[in-house]
Amino acid sequence: MTSAPEDDDATPARPTDEPDDQQLVVDVFARACPSRSLLADVTGRWGTLAVLALADGTARFGALRRRVDGVSEKMLSQTLQALERDGLVVREVVTSIPPHVEYTLTPLGQRVAGRLRALVEVLEESVPEVLAAREAHEVRGRVGA
Amino acid sequence: MTSAPEDDDATPARPTDEPDDQQLVVDVFARACPSRSLLADVTGRWGTLAVLALADGTARFGALRRRVDGVSEKMLSQTLQALERDGLVVREVVTSIPPHVEYTLTPLGQRVAGRLRALVEVLEESVPEVLAAREAHEVRGRVGA
Repeated sequence: MTSAPEDDDATPARPTDEPDDQQLVVDVFARACPSRSLLADVTGRWGTLAVLALADGTARFGALRRRVDGVSEKMLSQTLQALERDGLVVREVVTSIPPHVEYTLTPLGQRVAGRLRALVEVLEESVPEVLAAREAHEVRGRVGA
Repeated sequence: MTSAPEDDDATPARPTDEPDDQQLVVDVFARACPSRSLLADVTGRWGTLAVLALADGTARFGALRRRVDGVSEKMLSQTLQALERDGLVVREVVTSIPPHVEYTLTPLGQRVAGRLRALVEVLEESVPEVLAAREAHEVRGRVGA
């Protein structure tokens, strides 16, 4: 979805003066496209890990926090709120004693999780290659190239 | 790669005195695993869009900047540097008149781009569903649920 025609930094698929401005043009490269904020929520600082953790099944807040090593309570809470707002996660208050809150991926969340998992698989298996690249980069930096 | 439990933002692969420290246990959930910083570089604020823009082929800085709508010169530069360091992007100075700089994905960068593209496809096609979810979320918020 593209927004205002005005620019310096052209928006892709910029609407012209035709009245078809209503038409959705979904393009993650366009800054006003909702897919862009969705991408930010899904990747972002903790989004990917939260979604992947939930791909294993429904979980309580505390369990998620332990799984996503290093996340603060506040950041995890904000991350889950954004994912809930986007319809990727459902938050449910379970009326046990004591009551607790559970988080579950929606079908949309599961589709996204599948793609994130595929991405992370490539990243995890690339670690040796990336470490070698970082090492080489550092050496070049020291040599002053 | 998991490292010592102790932290405050652990350096990757910190050596301990255990002999089995050599063994790589790649796990994106572990905060000290290099796959985690790689994930941050690849997703991050602009990483995904920069990689996807380069998936279309070699590009100059200015062209990338126009494609990644909304990115500042500084942020794009930092993003490309991180991707170069990770071995996903090669930066080449072309000795034309005037000389210019070109960026190209490495084979590793292309593998990552493929997975990112698959992710973004799901996100782009989910926009109507996500917009509906956000709308419903806002309504619930107003009702005070």
